[in-house]
Amino acid sequence: MKIGIIGANGYGGAELIRLLHQHPKVEIEMLISNSTKGTVLTDQYKHLHNIIEMPLEEWNPNKIQSKLDVLFFATPSGVSKEMLPSLLESEITCIDLSGDFRLKSEGLYEKWYKNKSAHIEDLQKSTYGLTELNRNEIKNSKFIANPGCYPTATLLGLAPVLKANVIDMNSIIIDGKSGVSGAGRKPSVGNLFSEVNENVTAYKLGTHQHIPEIEQEIQNITGISAAVTFTTHLIPMTRGIMCTIYADLKQKVNVEEILELYREAYKDDGFIRIRPKDNWPSTKEVYSTNYCDIGINIEERTGRLTIISVIDNLVKGAAGQAIQNLNVIAGWDERTGLAGIPIYP
Amino acid sequence: MKIGIIGANGYGGAELIRLLHQHPKVEIEMLISNSTKGTVLTDQYKHLHNIIEMPLEEWNPNKIQSKLDVLFFATPSGVSKEMLPSLLESEITCIDLSGDFRLKSEGLYEKWYKNKSAHIEDLQKSTYGLTELNRNEIKNSKFIANPGCYPTATLLGLAPVLKANVIDMNSIIIDGKSGVSGAGRKPSVGNLFSEVNENVTAYKLGTHQHIPEIEQEIQNITGISAAVTFTTHLIPMTRGIMCTIYADLKQKVNVEEILELYREAYKDDGFIRIRPKDNWPSTKEVYSTNYCDIGINIEERTGRLTIISVIDNLVKGAAGQAIQNLNVIAGWDERTGLAGIPIYP
Amino acid sequence: MKIGIIGANGYGGAELIRLLHQHPKVEIEMLISNSTKGTVLTDQYKHLHNIIEMPLEEWNPNKIQSKLDVLFFATPSGVSKEMLPSLLESEITCIDLSGDFRLKSEGLYEKWYKNKSAHIEDLQKSTYGLTELNRNEIKNSKFIANPGCYPTATLLGLAPVLKANVIDMNSIIIDGKSGVSGAGRKPSVGNLFSEVNENVTAYKLGTHQHIPEIEQEIQNITGISAAVTFTTHLIPMTRGIMCTIYADLKQKVNVEEILELYREAYKDDGFIRIRPKDNWPSTKEVYSTNYCDIGINIEERTGRLTIISVIDNLVKGAAGQAIQNLNVIAGWDERTGLAGIPIYP
Amino acid sequence: MKIGIIGANGYGGAELIRLLHQHPKVEIEMLISNSTKGTVLTDQYKHLHNIIEMPLEEWNPNKIQSKLDVLFFATPSGVSKEMLPSLLESEITCIDLSGDFRLKSEGLYEKWYKNKSAHIEDLQKSTYGLTELNRNEIKNSKFIANPGCYPTATLLGLAPVLKANVIDMNSIIIDGKSGVSGAGRKPSVGNLFSEVNENVTAYKLGTHQHIPEIEQEIQNITGISAAVTFTTHLIPMTRGIMCTIYADLKQKVNVEEILELYREAYKDDGFIRIRPKDNWPSTKEVYSTNYCDIGINIEERTGRLTIISVIDNLVKGAAGQAIQNLNVIAGWDERTGLAGIPIYP
Repeated sequence: MKIGIIGANGYGGAELIRLLHQHPKVEIEMLISNSTKGTVLTDQYKHLHNIIEMPLEEWNPNKIQSKLDVLFFATPSGVSKEMLPSLLESEITCIDLSGDFRLKSEGLYEKWYKNKSAHIEDLQKSTYGLTELNRNEIKNSKFIANPGCYPTATLLGLAPVLKANVIDMNSIIIDGKSGVSGAGRKPSVGNLFSEVNENVTAYKLGTHQHIPEIEQEIQNITGISAAVTFTTHLIPMTRGIMCTIYADLKQKVNVEEILELYREAYKDDGFIRIRPKDNWPSTKEVYSTNYCDIGINIEERTGRLTIISVIDNLVKGAAGQAIQNLNVIAGWDERTGLAGIPIYP
Repeated sequence: MKIGIIGANGYGGAELIRLLHQHPKVEIEMLISNSTKGTVLTDQYKHLHNIIEMPLEEWNPNKIQSKLDVLFFATPSGVSKEMLPSLLESEITCIDLSGDFRLKSEGLYEKWYKNKSAHIEDLQKSTYGLTELNRNEIKNSKFIANPGCYPTATLLGLAPVLKANVIDMNSIIIDGKSGVSGAGRKPSVGNLFSEVNENVTAYKLGTHQHIPEIEQEIQNITGISAAVTFTTHLIPMTRGIMCTIYADLKQKVNVEEILELYREAYKDDGFIRIRPKDNWPSTKEVYSTNYCDIGINIEERTGRLTIISVIDNLVKGAAGQAIQNLNVIAGWDERTGLAGIPIYP
Repeated sequence: MKIGIIGANGYGGAELIRLLHQHPKVEIEMLISNSTKGTVLTDQYKHLHNIIEMPLEEWNPNKIQSKLDVLFFATPSGVSKEMLPSLLESEITCIDLSGDFRLKSEGLYEKWYKNKSAHIEDLQKSTYGLTELNRNEIKNSKFIANPGCYPTATLLGLAPVLKANVIDMNSIIIDGKSGVSGAGRKPSVGNLFSEVNENVTAYKLGTHQHIPEIEQEIQNITGISAAVTFTTHLIPMTRGIMCTIYADLKQKVNVEEILELYREAYKDDGFIRIRPKDNWPSTKEVYSTNYCDIGINIEERTGRLTIISVIDNLVKGAAGQAIQNLNVIAGWDERTGLAGIPIYP
Repeated sequence: MKIGIIGANGYGGAELIRLLHQHPKVEIEMLISNSTKGTVLTDQYKHLHNIIEMPLEEWNPNKIQSKLDVLFFATPSGVSKEMLPSLLESEITCIDLSGDFRLKSEGLYEKWYKNKSAHIEDLQKSTYGLTELNRNEIKNSKFIANPGCYPTATLLGLAPVLKANVIDMNSIIIDGKSGVSGAGRKPSVGNLFSEVNENVTAYKLGTHQHIPEIEQEIQNITGISAAVTFTTHLIPMTRGIMCTIYADLKQKVNVEEILELYREAYKDDGFIRIRPKDNWPSTKEVYSTNYCDIGINIEERTGRLTIISVIDNLVKGAAGQAIQNLNVIAGWDERTGLAGIPIYP
């Protein structure tokens, strides 16, 4: 299968290249980057020297349609909504890693992204690609809105208790901690080593664009519209997201019952690892892989549930899940090209 | 004033030495370390070469009583409860940075520290040294139980809304993120660079010994016994603690009203800096200093208050606050010896 | 092929497990760790949860001989010299990642390792496993002394100019910079996060045990006994070694001539990547892979050659090269199980 | 004494502010930043909230002359050569932290800085401010070219053996390792956290603009024109420089003789700390201070001297030394405002 990547010069693009290069069923056919077109990939990424020496090309829909089966959009917000619709009539499968088609309402996008939305009919065409939760829809889609990194960790962490209807829907608080690679490769003072190192920063309190994405999907799972508190923190590491999720239990249950709920919910999902009691995952334990590890705690003192959910933001939170979705669409084993063990230490 | 430090070979001890050395009113007279007695300080800490060349001595209560005015305990849990009581009849002011005398009930200590408590009458003699909240008691005390690092950040962050009675007391959740220096200098696999770097870990969920300390002081402030959820995370940095605190507001208020509450509550407290609206502190912004910086957010969507409180765990969370307490006891300006600007970057 | 690992609880062991697990021709049959025997692997390494759940067994030569084809020693100095000789009469291929059999003289080992050497006849039986330089000997060996991390980077960096006889043999200076994982997982104050972070330390000046290894192999390549200066530095990262190598050129040559020498020398070596002029490698560009990247500079002002050679210390500097050697011995493609792309960023 | 800083929004400027604020003899009167004029300092540096709330002003020579006694230039290369000459006729003492006036030849500047030089007569007016080596000239100067960070560590490390004429002048190699703050606060891909973390990079081999500065001062010390090899490496930390310096000894001497040379050379220099035999400094041991720590090794095997010299690049390598120079000019104790203990850990 012939694939292309637009936004190949960003971190999401580079991670797609890393993972697709070792995928036995695909061939990287075209790399597109309007901002660095005319350069070669190894000008941007010296680690690919001698491995992948390809030009970075300009966006050209005709060429794309004649040469590719699949196009991944690893572009910043606001790009795919302009470019992707022109491919929707073609045979090409589009997997969009940006946020442009995740929210199913124009108003919601415009409120949270502070930018004009894609057309509502195009929003409706896309399938939200959280693989474990939407596998059946994904199987029959050729246009995937790949989930955000925080929503992936959050929704996988919450889904079993949402479905089981055991938590107070007004009590959900998500405290997210992220490495810096999620901010991309575009230089800014806030992402300089000297600013991030030996530092933890809270940012976008109450205004993060992943809030409506989380709330939309919670509603899709439960049918209930609930507002969540979601706070994001930048911590001094490159990769990894941990979401610490708090919710009030509606009734007294013990940890083993909740853990059993999780094990059952994810029993066919090879990338979800439920930790035993009193064992909480750390981000390094999923480093460079498509795993989402989940640990659970219940406090008797407060009757509150705490869920620790970790992913590698560039893999399960972006490129890895995109490939997992391609695997589902193509009918391949979901783990194809994604079978590595976490790098540790 | 002649001071001594026991536990001078740990990080808390080293930080006391750094700060006391530049304190104009005191003289470091004796450094005590049973585990490394017979060595000199610069064997343990080469950065002090040519600056402070002193022997590390053995614990000797008679010598201490004859030579010192003040003794700081920078010892691990379980040490001061054995040693400190022998000094309580003397003239010496004791400031204990460990947790041995913070909890005012024997049972509470034994439950959370898994160790035999100090005698109840000695527990009662100590003053909980959160300077901004207990300044008057501290002024007349000669035995200070210096607060834990997390409780310092948490209680300073919560006190104004606790006193103003504007939050639901059953809704308090504290998500703590700490640098590694809080774990001390004793080697363990979990604190190795290779394990901590590029990693975030949740630990001691629901069992951290700072939980009863926070709850005890919340009760002292409000008169109400409330259970809090408190989750701690280790992040890849050396110094700094951020507590992100969540609570449900009992009524609709706006951010400016809450900020005004904080500015008023801390108007005479030079080390507390309240940030303006939409400005949240990061730990690097208080690095190496005794500041506690606090930022506030209110979400209309959820009616929830978020408080961001940051300190340097070794300064305001340990040695700095201990010295601030000494300044109060001695009647000196509280900022004496603590006037540095944060190291940035 | 059935393989075992002794020292499976260390970082070298964990890296062997990561790489061998994705190797299509081998099966991990036995994990041995005397110090943590009786536990299971996931007690030591939670990142392997659900992936490799195996017990850590005790050393048992009979069992090893009956079950294994290959045994990797990922043990600290001083262990394999006691245990490995008992297997030399068996059919088992032994690949020793420690330094116990690298030096071909008992006196040299005893001088630099401060410990009794293996027997001289056993030292002679081993083959020094720097694959690119000794491929033919390795092919016919069943006992490999796998090179040290610094010697690997250094010797691959120097070999072409040593063979071409273009540098002054008395002028070689190697300035090594290493991540902390090379020091292993045994806790020590010097490897704590708080000590390593925001710090660079020079250590073992003139006394590092890799000095005689480098000098021995330089002599094997050139026939000349030359003393080198070798200085090691610990820098705040987990993985990666850079050796910056300085040598005086015996005659005037230009960079392109030297680069051509390198390209020619390594033309059949898929893991060695020679960078073009004015392009120097960084350690992150080989992260998690078996690559050794080399860049060259010549200063006209001083007539001096500078070579920058980088590896991942746990891969090409340990586990990866060990597997590369196994591939050579077994007659498989050298890249089998080692074909990943560097993790970046 | 009334001082001003131009370039107050950079890291050098921020460090001057930190140190001058606690200097008892000066008052910060004016902060200048053309690029961020009209903002206030705390917009750029939130850590100064409530401590220093000053506007960032535009460059105005008349205002400067009427209000200031001293002006520090903490500007990027190429700025002070345009602005500073207009002040040379005034009474103002100018201390330039940039490289614009360090090289005493126009051609040298133009070759290495790739930019037009200041006028030769202005170059000649400045005094090279390496305090320990040029104290007498500095005392009578009102125009200081403050040394570069690498030259400071290198020259302090080399001066005693240069003066004693014990090394081969053609054998000097300096291997520099630096934290990232030296690159300033201007965003660039190369300084992003995700690129620097878990990475070591060699850069500007043979072309670094500090090479001619080092060679010029070696000539000033010895009268001999010698070419040095100088290689710079970026390591994943914010502050600190280590220079590992190699040189061939002309005759056999032992470490103690060399150490005695250093102790004697710096016996009146409170900021230079010579380590005992087999004790080498690390950068964290001088963190945030004006110390330069030096350790020495001699290898009998090679007859080579190794010197380890460490500084905090923002203090002794920039702002601290600039203030030390002001103290000399003003006739104050050199340690005024610079007496802090290194932050450790």
